[in-house]
Amino acid sequence: MISRVLSAELAEHAGQRVTIAGWVHRRRLLKSVSFLVVRDRSGLAQAVTAGDLPAEESVVQVTGRVTVNPQAPGGAELTEPEIELLSRPVEPPPFDLFRPVVAATLPTVLDHAPAALRHPALRAPLEISAASVAGFRAALDRLGFTEVHTPKIVASATESGANVFGIDYFGRPAYLAQSPQFYKQAMAGVFERVYEVGPVFRAEPHDTVRHLAQYTSLDAELGFVRDHRDVMAVLREAVAGMLESVRERAAPAVALLGAELPGVPEEIPAIHFTEAQRMTGEDEPDLSPAQERWLSEWALKEHGSEFLFVTGYPMAKRPFYTHPDPGRPGYSNGFDLLFRGLELVTGGQRLHRHQDYLDALAARGESAEPYEGYLRTFAYGMPPHGGFAIGLERWTARLTGAANIRQVTAFPRDLHRLTP
Amino acid sequence: MISRVLSAELAEHAGQRVTIAGWVHRRRLLKSVSFLVVRDRSGLAQAVTAGDLPAEESVVQVTGRVTVNPQAPGGAELTEPEIELLSRPVEPPPFDLFRPVVAATLPTVLDHAPAALRHPALRAPLEISAASVAGFRAALDRLGFTEVHTPKIVASATESGANVFGIDYFGRPAYLAQSPQFYKQAMAGVFERVYEVGPVFRAEPHDTVRHLAQYTSLDAELGFVRDHRDVMAVLREAVAGMLESVRERAAPAVALLGAELPGVPEEIPAIHFTEAQRMTGEDEPDLSPAQERWLSEWALKEHGSEFLFVTGYPMAKRPFYTHPDPGRPGYSNGFDLLFRGLELVTGGQRLHRHQDYLDALAARGESAEPYEGYLRTFAYGMPPHGGFAIGLERWTARLTGAANIRQVTAFPRDLHRLTP
Repeated sequence: MISRVLSAELAEHAGQRVTIAGWVHRRRLLKSVSFLVVRDRSGLAQAVTAGDLPAEESVVQVTGRVTVNPQAPGGAELTEPEIELLSRPVEPPPFDLFRPVVAATLPTVLDHAPAALRHPALRAPLEISAASVAGFRAALDRLGFTEVHTPKIVASATESGANVFGIDYFGRPAYLAQSPQFYKQAMAGVFERVYEVGPVFRAEPHDTVRHLAQYTSLDAELGFVRDHRDVMAVLREAVAGMLESVRERAAPAVALLGAELPGVPEEIPAIHFTEAQRMTGEDEPDLSPAQERWLSEWALKEHGSEFLFVTGYPMAKRPFYTHPDPGRPGYSNGFDLLFRGLELVTGGQRLHRHQDYLDALAARGESAEPYEGYLRTFAYGMPPHGGFAIGLERWTARLTGAANIRQVTAFPRDLHRLTP
Repeated sequence: MISRVLSAELAEHAGQRVTIAGWVHRRRLLKSVSFLVVRDRSGLAQAVTAGDLPAEESVVQVTGRVTVNPQAPGGAELTEPEIELLSRPVEPPPFDLFRPVVAATLPTVLDHAPAALRHPALRAPLEISAASVAGFRAALDRLGFTEVHTPKIVASATESGANVFGIDYFGRPAYLAQSPQFYKQAMAGVFERVYEVGPVFRAEPHDTVRHLAQYTSLDAELGFVRDHRDVMAVLREAVAGMLESVRERAAPAVALLGAELPGVPEEIPAIHFTEAQRMTGEDEPDLSPAQERWLSEWALKEHGSEFLFVTGYPMAKRPFYTHPDPGRPGYSNGFDLLFRGLELVTGGQRLHRHQDYLDALAARGESAEPYEGYLRTFAYGMPPHGGFAIGLERWTARLTGAANIRQVTAFPRDLHRLTP
């Protein structure tokens, strides 16, 4: 490896002659002295020189003496530097990466992602995202979950016939999986508790700030639950683990963005769908965005919680595999988790008896035949189980206050965008 | 959650009345007494009763007194049990799941995966696989890597024009990514060190024991390397971390399969491609399977290592983004890692200067135009970098001695198989 110290460690080497390496983040040419700010994965470091300086985004290795300077980033700078140019850019970045505020429109940022994401404020959400996923896994590992990897190419649509991408599979029609739903249920029959972090695909015909054609889904499924409340308890642990990991692993990114991390109550407040409707004075079979915002504000005021479970959505609005509420026909053991005014997670208890699946499909007027492979799982004996799916990009967007999900996705895919 | 103890913890509760829950793994009906063996995620537990017993793969909850019995699995069993049936199978499993040896052909296993994978010997490779991935991430986390998630739907083929699945992307042609190669390089320009664990897709027209249409790729890429040897050093850490995690997290699975885990030398032996050719008396531009086997045996005999790096493959056999060996024109800074007679990992140093990419494409008679988005990364200044990709299923197959990669893949996709 190129022998170097990271910029964040520079001050520890005061008085020594060391090498740093990274990108030229900024050049400042004053009358008698020049400042070269180098960016590496740990942050920024400054070198003071009198000579010419390579262009921004040049890759350099700088060797110099570490001199304490409270005004320099990290409290130290390199003096008497020797600069070695490792590679030079052939075009300038699409906007100045060194300015604290991103001076570019979202399309410009997305079109030039390989350069734009180097901007610390655009990189930060991806660090928070990575830390979140690590926390999700750690929390579920502690609870005895096993990680699985399931097919993304499937023979039939999983969630609904719409919004599915078709693929030519060796001359046969196939589809990109909209979720790992069926597979994670099957694997709950093997390992009891499973999770998967992976891409899911939705041919969303709508151009909104909340939808992507590919997103990263954090999926979990667990057996031997009493009902959906056991699933909610595990989800609470997963969310708390994600936030704990963000605090530990992405503190600089959180600070840079000024993101406020929510607390997670030991027990996240929950209200029934019918109660939510009563409080908001509506009677549609689903919650509107305005209702979700109102309910989130209510939970914050009433319970001091930025998270709120809404349980018992009407069966008619939930997928056929949803377990009904045994005590309230027409309502489900399904839930949504609202976070800061938006639905972040959908989950619930699933049906687990083979006959219940046949009945549920019949009740919806659907043939069981396209689901034959799926139903086979339940033919072999399945425990009461349930699960949930967290959309990673939605999570990160809410956490960082990004208005558009594309701001927290490295290379988004949508109706219009297939590159870079 | 259903209040219960796991079967592996049963002996700790000797004398107490406890509940276990799981699947009926086996029933043994003797003259005056019956044994019910229950399988849960931790292992097996036995209950002794005089009554009728539910069919195999029924899901049950069993409450009884924990009685020490050295002959029972785990050294204790439940006596005076009350058995509650949570759900019953509607058909028997495709073969007896309780017999130590799987008495079914591979097609039967794969066709009935949701039931078949419950067999401890078929579940075990997936536990080893999960532990391996956890170790891969932990090793790279320790080295300052950041996890990324990149698009699986791309505008053009990445690795080569062949073997790519076409997809209808909102009426436009698109493809499933054959690797995250271009994106991980771009993200090395952002985070310096990145990894991704995700699905990759190859429309493999060959029906072999080593190829899948979808597999899980463990990808890493890192900047500021001197050359490919720095990449090899990181790969060594990743492999050592994977094995350490398998030992820690999947010991019962390793024991069940009788898998022998290899040691990893501090420095994995490496020979140059030309030397490999000389020793095996061949002069083709690539290594044959027979040569790979011979070289692996040689490394074991000569260096006591089950791992062997072969470096410096001819440029003609490596992708256009491969960095040449500055001292030996025609040979590359690319490498393969052989493990037990097979190529397990491919990697190397990449080109990092924009002009070098243009020259490399021109030398191959390829137009730069389809690569415009990719080349943009290098227009902005990239450090010397390299990376590698480990095929998870191949790794697990080698580790467990599975002859066919499908034996260690939950729901394989290939030329003929699209379900379950």
